Amino acid sequence: MAKSPSKTMSGEDRLIARHFKPLARHPGAFGLEDDAAILSPPPGHDVVLKTDAIVGGMHFFPRDPADAVARKALRVNLSDLAAKGARPAGFLLSLALPKSVDDKWLSDFARGLGADAKRYECPLMGGDTDRTSGPVTIAIAAFGTLPAGTMVRRSGASAGDRVVVSGTIGDAALGLKLRHKPANAKRWKLTAAMRKHLLGRYLLPEPRNAITEALRVHASAAMDVSDGLAGDLAKLCRASGVAAEIDAAHVPLSLAARTALSTDGKLIETILTGGDDYEIVASVAPAKLASLLATARAAGVTLTEIGAVVAGKGAQFYASNGKVLTFARASYSHF
Amino acid sequence: MAKSPSKTMSGEDRLIARHFKPLARHPGAFGLEDDAAILSPPPGHDVVLKTDAIVGGMHFFPRDPADAVARKALRVNLSDLAAKGARPAGFLLSLALPKSVDDKWLSDFARGLGADAKRYECPLMGGDTDRTSGPVTIAIAAFGTLPAGTMVRRSGASAGDRVVVSGTIGDAALGLKLRHKPANAKRWKLTAAMRKHLLGRYLLPEPRNAITEALRVHASAAMDVSDGLAGDLAKLCRASGVAAEIDAAHVPLSLAARTALSTDGKLIETILTGGDDYEIVASVAPAKLASLLATARAAGVTLTEIGAVVAGKGAQFYASNGKVLTFARASYSHF
Repeated sequence: MAKSPSKTMSGEDRLIARHFKPLARHPGAFGLEDDAAILSPPPGHDVVLKTDAIVGGMHFFPRDPADAVARKALRVNLSDLAAKGARPAGFLLSLALPKSVDDKWLSDFARGLGADAKRYECPLMGGDTDRTSGPVTIAIAAFGTLPAGTMVRRSGASAGDRVVVSGTIGDAALGLKLRHKPANAKRWKLTAAMRKHLLGRYLLPEPRNAITEALRVHASAAMDVSDGLAGDLAKLCRASGVAAEIDAAHVPLSLAARTALSTDGKLIETILTGGDDYEIVASVAPAKLASLLATARAAGVTLTEIGAVVAGKGAQFYASNGKVLTFARASYSHF
Repeated sequence: MAKSPSKTMSGEDRLIARHFKPLARHPGAFGLEDDAAILSPPPGHDVVLKTDAIVGGMHFFPRDPADAVARKALRVNLSDLAAKGARPAGFLLSLALPKSVDDKWLSDFARGLGADAKRYECPLMGGDTDRTSGPVTIAIAAFGTLPAGTMVRRSGASAGDRVVVSGTIGDAALGLKLRHKPANAKRWKLTAAMRKHLLGRYLLPEPRNAITEALRVHASAAMDVSDGLAGDLAKLCRASGVAAEIDAAHVPLSLAARTALSTDGKLIETILTGGDDYEIVASVAPAKLASLLATARAAGVTLTEIGAVVAGKGAQFYASNGKVLTFARASYSHF
């Protein structure tokens, strides 16, 4: 805003007007000048609702660039919409800020948020800003739409389905290990590019919204991989009342992850259970597999077949020697 | 849950299953066992979206009862839905918890939340729980529905409209002053019942969802009073491009607030600008005033006429001597 705000505006109003109003391009956001926003889903469509928060010191480092923090906060929600087959419609932002956050940080934050809101066609609809004595806390509630009754559930997998996963697994968990202990780069024999790749995958996930429609049409069940592939696939199996048998050697790994793993075989546990992947694991009927893979490929996303859904309970990962891998814990949890 | 959870469940999953799953009664919440929820608004209806967070040490005291904290977190959002004329449909909960929070706290929190979700017919649709090194932070995104295009805006007031406000104003702000300085009770000559009234109004707002439909049908503009009547009415005026002239003596006060004010006339500023009222201020065309007041009364909510909308800018509060009241700041802001 070029003009100075009215003296009846509070500090919070000015903050919103300056940083966030330019992002509120959806007509139902009323330029953030009302108490609430309006979403009008197309006739015959459901609204898909999701909330996920990220907290300083837990999901990102306090000194991470503010634009990346904002983008991560939105992307972890977009990833869920993608897995459910929902097209992004908009989001609400709840921001708790310590006093140490300055105008530069907010400006960078809003710029990153705006860039991704535009990229993923998911505009800011409304929000709330508060002070906190704790770390920066960003809770986003994201909304998507899809034809009524077509949300891709966790519970739709049947014995006989194939299991696929997008992108590569384990990069972000290895990237986090690098953040905590930079000397790992040398131990893992990483090149500078590999190190950068892993760090980047932790800092900024790449949600798979490009395959939203492919999943909605083809997948029998899906979820995003945020707490580790092993644990998240186990959740999908539990919801579907089935088991999965996964060939660990087929789980897609980046060159960086493969290089690290070749120096320390125990890293397979970090890779399969560490989390923060924001890839998608899905089940698909064999007859639809080729079509799903081709549609995803055309959208620029590699899906890899990693195993099968079978009768029973649990998700088993088999090593190349035929033995079942066991993990200290199957998925990441703060609790 | 009587049975012990599967060993593949994480601590977070167990926390959700134990405390929050019982609250997720909406069919679109899928028992919190999927990644997202589904809301299917009735044909021809808009979804109204709102998020508001409360933070420990900012909006409530760390030792406040957990059930009241939960209810306040939901009610501050319900209050906005009421002001906009939207019927509650459900909410998402994002909860950041320090390690000091124990199972008893969570159990009380979930009980309070469940009681209000039932009372206001606003079921839990989904959520997210995270650890924080800071205070308890509760971000709720609440959803309501209403016939398309009928949301009561801030911007609909016209010169000639009357201004009404629900309930009584200033109680919560005085209650907060009592929390900070208990000796005020004696200074303000409060009886035990008056003291309890003010403290209770701060701890637990009473959102006016009973008059949602009355507002939707009759009000030309409305908003909930959360940051102080003076500042919030000024916002409504700015959004509508009008001014308001309010007779301060007509602003409805509780017996407790009147008693306190009689001992210290300066408290009028706390009353009119302190915030946390969660009452509703609305404008209404003169021809609809009687009907609005009667409908609200029938729903158990007193609306009081406090002034008029006129051409111009700003919300002016007139003292009984005809002078305009001036305030150091018109509304509460953390920034």
